Amino acid sequence: MRLDELNWMDVEKYLSHEDRLIFVIGACEQHGYLSLLTDVKVPMALADAASQRTGVLVAPPVNYGVSPYFLAYPGTISLRLNTFVDLVEDLVRSSYGQGFRRFLFLNGHGGNDSARARLFELSNQLSGMRLAWHSWWVSHSVEMVAQKYALKPSHANWLEAFTFTQVAELPEGEKTPPAVRGLLSAEEARILYGDGSFGGPYRADEAVMDELFAACLADVMQLLANLN
Amino acid sequence: MRLDELNWMDVEKYLSHEDRLIFVIGACEQHGYLSLLTDVKVPMALADAASQRTGVLVAPPVNYGVSPYFLAYPGTISLRLNTFVDLVEDLVRSSYGQGFRRFLFLNGHGGNDSARARLFELSNQLSGMRLAWHSWWVSHSVEMVAQKYALKPSHANWLEAFTFTQVAELPEGEKTPPAVRGLLSAEEARILYGDGSFGGPYRADEAVMDELFAACLADVMQLLANLN
Amino acid sequence: MRLDELNWMDVEKYLSHEDRLIFVIGACEQHGYLSLLTDVKVPMALADAASQRTGVLVAPPVNYGVSPYFLAYPGTISLRLNTFVDLVEDLVRSSYGQGFRRFLFLNGHGGNDSARARLFELSNQLSGMRLAWHSWWVSHSVEMVAQKYALKPSHANWLEAFTFTQVAELPEGEKTPPAVRGLLSAEEARILYGDGSFGGPYRADEAVMDELFAACLADVMQLLANLN
Amino acid sequence: MRLDELNWMDVEKYLSHEDRLIFVIGACEQHGYLSLLTDVKVPMALADAASQRTGVLVAPPVNYGVSPYFLAYPGTISLRLNTFVDLVEDLVRSSYGQGFRRFLFLNGHGGNDSARARLFELSNQLSGMRLAWHSWWVSHSVEMVAQKYALKPSHANWLEAFTFTQVAELPEGEKTPPAVRGLLSAEEARILYGDGSFGGPYRADEAVMDELFAACLADVMQLLANLN
Amino acid sequence: MRLDELNWMDVEKYLSHEDRLIFVIGACEQHGYLSLLTDVKVPMALADAASQRTGVLVAPPVNYGVSPYFLAYPGTISLRLNTFVDLVEDLVRSSYGQGFRRFLFLNGHGGNDSARARLFELSNQLSGMRLAWHSWWVSHSVEMVAQKYALKPSHANWLEAFTFTQVAELPEGEKTPPAVRGLLSAEEARILYGDGSFGGPYRADEAVMDELFAACLADVMQLLANLN
Amino acid sequence: MRLDELNWMDVEKYLSHEDRLIFVIGACEQHGYLSLLTDVKVPMALADAASQRTGVLVAPPVNYGVSPYFLAYPGTISLRLNTFVDLVEDLVRSSYGQGFRRFLFLNGHGGNDSARARLFELSNQLSGMRLAWHSWWVSHSVEMVAQKYALKPSHANWLEAFTFTQVAELPEGEKTPPAVRGLLSAEEARILYGDGSFGGPYRADEAVMDELFAACLADVMQLLANLN
Repeated sequence: MRLDELNWMDVEKYLSHEDRLIFVIGACEQHGYLSLLTDVKVPMALADAASQRTGVLVAPPVNYGVSPYFLAYPGTISLRLNTFVDLVEDLVRSSYGQGFRRFLFLNGHGGNDSARARLFELSNQLSGMRLAWHSWWVSHSVEMVAQKYALKPSHANWLEAFTFTQVAELPEGEKTPPAVRGLLSAEEARILYGDGSFGGPYRADEAVMDELFAACLADVMQLLANLN
Repeated sequence: MRLDELNWMDVEKYLSHEDRLIFVIGACEQHGYLSLLTDVKVPMALADAASQRTGVLVAPPVNYGVSPYFLAYPGTISLRLNTFVDLVEDLVRSSYGQGFRRFLFLNGHGGNDSARARLFELSNQLSGMRLAWHSWWVSHSVEMVAQKYALKPSHANWLEAFTFTQVAELPEGEKTPPAVRGLLSAEEARILYGDGSFGGPYRADEAVMDELFAACLADVMQLLANLN
Repeated sequence: MRLDELNWMDVEKYLSHEDRLIFVIGACEQHGYLSLLTDVKVPMALADAASQRTGVLVAPPVNYGVSPYFLAYPGTISLRLNTFVDLVEDLVRSSYGQGFRRFLFLNGHGGNDSARARLFELSNQLSGMRLAWHSWWVSHSVEMVAQKYALKPSHANWLEAFTFTQVAELPEGEKTPPAVRGLLSAEEARILYGDGSFGGPYRADEAVMDELFAACLADVMQLLANLN
Repeated sequence: MRLDELNWMDVEKYLSHEDRLIFVIGACEQHGYLSLLTDVKVPMALADAASQRTGVLVAPPVNYGVSPYFLAYPGTISLRLNTFVDLVEDLVRSSYGQGFRRFLFLNGHGGNDSARARLFELSNQLSGMRLAWHSWWVSHSVEMVAQKYALKPSHANWLEAFTFTQVAELPEGEKTPPAVRGLLSAEEARILYGDGSFGGPYRADEAVMDELFAACLADVMQLLANLN
Repeated sequence: MRLDELNWMDVEKYLSHEDRLIFVIGACEQHGYLSLLTDVKVPMALADAASQRTGVLVAPPVNYGVSPYFLAYPGTISLRLNTFVDLVEDLVRSSYGQGFRRFLFLNGHGGNDSARARLFELSNQLSGMRLAWHSWWVSHSVEMVAQKYALKPSHANWLEAFTFTQVAELPEGEKTPPAVRGLLSAEEARILYGDGSFGGPYRADEAVMDELFAACLADVMQLLANLN
Repeated sequence: MRLDELNWMDVEKYLSHEDRLIFVIGACEQHGYLSLLTDVKVPMALADAASQRTGVLVAPPVNYGVSPYFLAYPGTISLRLNTFVDLVEDLVRSSYGQGFRRFLFLNGHGGNDSARARLFELSNQLSGMRLAWHSWWVSHSVEMVAQKYALKPSHANWLEAFTFTQVAELPEGEKTPPAVRGLLSAEEARILYGDGSFGGPYRADEAVMDELFAACLADVMQLLANLN
């Protein structure tokens, strides 16, 4: 269930028996041939599926994240670090004030991880809170699938090429991952990465992607169960 | 066309002949019996319709706005003023850097208007930019429709009760608008507003709502045409 | 009574029987042929008059406001949005800490309205506070006077041309209000507005101005009475 | 000449032959038996006198400063350090943008000195600027007068007891200066300082005060001349 | 060579032929039985050794980092996320302004990684800069040594138990790593981690530590060579 | 005793009988022929000596301060005012949370004094705290030594030329102090100050320096005793 399907009375009822909430944290940034909103679509799909199974509410997605290194790719819209972590703080404080206590942050973008530092600060201030931050691809399950099919997971390659993130035909074959040295400016990143993928196969069989999604969903289910 | 249906190459093509972009700015806050995301859904529907007619791109919605006075209603998730205006600044700077020059902010929530002050500051720094901020219900057209049917527009009454914002049965009849004195705290606002509507009829005929939507869409079309 | 006529012992005595305080919030910005401090002078005059009748204390004026769009006019000195709202917060917190509880913000400048968002945030944090924000010209009374004499009120026209805001001879006649599209940069605003007035008659008869002032003062008296 | 006596056209004319501007920076804080606005009144009087002699413009005073240690005295209204230095930055940037280049900050309150750090930062960013910060009582001239009459200058004693800062009868005689150890909280400061004076004689002969004022004015005249 | 052994003339000479600079970024936080400054001592030792071999200058260490989760352990002194990233930005801007262009951040503490987001932002603003951020234990070399001796590296275990970080006798044997769920508050972390080590062997043979140090130093040497 | 020689258990023991802590606040900035870290080395030496006599703990030094005016001298690395005061706040809050209550800030750099304003703000928020801020050269004792030997103390002259701050041969003789008008930009400061000393004798006899150090140490001992 997403918040947008409810009114406040529904949420009040929900809070009488449940205090978990899922925040979907994404990005609007280049993903090679894939949708600019890939980092929203994947965790949102996982959140929806987990919500269907558990009834845990899903807040509307944060559609923008921290992507300064991709700003030379048109369509990348990035928040400054400070803006982003302030926003994450506001999400927690607002809902904590109403009785939500256990939060799962389902994150779709690596650049957003800095928000954890702010969440640690918050956990020292708001008592009785439970916080989990999960970047869906940082997982033993994902590694397992990747190893099983000998596919190296990376930004904007097969790993993120679900049916629902594709907006154009994907290239056949593989891309050689470019060698990166140090922290690149947006200009340098565009030159280095060209089409935007970090390399490896552009796509995998639909069956593999289904297996991947199922594995990731199991992770999320586990995390929701662990939020105690 | 929404950004999420495109990849960066599509946006690069778009920028070769067009530099307008629509930002949908909403809120996640109580709307009485209506959806908590009403302030996103209305401007998003308008943006989609206008985009269909003009081809102007629509960025993913900002799902959270400035709603401190509704925080005692469960499901209201509010950004601090600073967080919100910083976010708006980041949207502009990111896309300006890629060649977008004319921005229409389609705003769904009155509390967000403070962002205009920051946009004025930005317009002094980024040359050749055109900015319009439009709160869809602040319009001669809306007044006309309201007067024609003798319906007073207000927060969470008929004005926002489109088919697509309804998530529960709406009450019949009217609510007497409560008298407000000064700036209320969230606790006081909840006591004063009860179900959350600011009063007046809870709903209007579907034909009225269609007329309203058409009028609002015409406003948006005009604003897009004026962005020169 | 203004704070500058008192020492701290006087204020301590005052707080033993009264907890209201008037803050005058202005701007230092172009007002066409009128004083650069027009937005301070008008609310200050109202505050002084109301203070004389009620004994409510008046804090020293905030002489600078949010006027980024007029920065191309010499003598306009503008605070950034953040600076300004932080300042307003500090005024409230300092005096709340000493026992003041009911605050009337008498505002002289439209660009300052963003501070209300911060005041709402504060009202969620400081209990037992009463806050009113009043922009003196946003009033049914002002509309009545304007309609009675068929004078359209606007920035730097007759509306603000009191005896005490005039620093130069005013032009005869009327100015055609320029058509504004979108949010203007300071450079664009200066080109569009020329002498700085937003159009309409430059002045009204002194009797009209007296009537206007009396109506505005009645508003302020009512607001002070309502602060409960 | 104060800005409030002018309109923007006057300032434009001024800027055609002069680029100096005086900012009066004060505080609203306890001064024992003296006016809560003493730290505005003194530098404002000096600025007005210097302006009369030189024609250099005086901007409207900043009526609030950094006085956290006096917050337990009713009527003290203090800005946080950050608010205050941001405000000072905005004053400089706004007027620099219009052609002002040489700024004299006439400061009435010791707690405001931190703003100098920000002014140094600004001087690295805005070329061709000349900045002077003068706390009127930190001066060889003041020391001379004090020594001549064997009067020790201190907060809220004779040093600030001009005719125009007195709002109540002053005590006869002297107060023994309390011994201060470390940085006091507002509560501790009120207990320690009692009536608010830092000790020494409460008043001096009017002739001494005239001599003091003349000496301070000479300092300001010299600073204005040196601003090259 | 450390900056503290030089005066500014020495640095000016250095800049005539070299533009690299090493910043040592640490933390002051609990490390079980090891020194509270472990996260400074290790990267400082590596920086000194690399500097001896290459002549690249080492700036004075940042002795405090982002450690909110350890604040319940006495002696842990943590910077807020914002403070820390602002500080890192200031280091870069100050030295960039003098001609330094290639910066190696030698980081001793995992919680500091958020600074990379700010560094990416800076790399979009300061042209011709080369930035590398290296957390010394995040390295293939370290993994190799760990695997070779079947030692699992973790916070405050053998991995950080160099001679120069020991300030007390270390326990014999191993600690079972506690299972962590979600983001812990400082109180929870102290309860969970007890003595502060994250588990595994408390120490390794000195020969192993020498091998580890040599491997880490080789990493740093490579990074300095790659900074082009 | 410095924190780096201890682990957290040691600090816990310390806190069972003592709650004082010394913070050494320095700068990394040009000091003429002396070390760039002079402003760290002097207060650190004093802190170490006082710690040896009293057992009061010394936190790791803050190696960077507020030195915008020296940024044109290579090797000067300056924090913005805001960064610096936020850092100082974090030091206090972190250690206060663990039971430290009495803090002596031993400051080596005049530009850091602005932090006192923030410390006053903190003292209003954290009860039972004792704070002292001491810039080691601002002292009657230092004046006495200076007068005794007819040496005028100033930045980067004999006053700071201890054995342990010297990194190069010092010039013989004296430098005529340049006349300063107003607040200088970094570029102007470099031109005015040349080698970086503010003038006067470059060095004094070792016996004088020993006497100076002893006098300064006595000050620190007194301050530690007074922290009640």
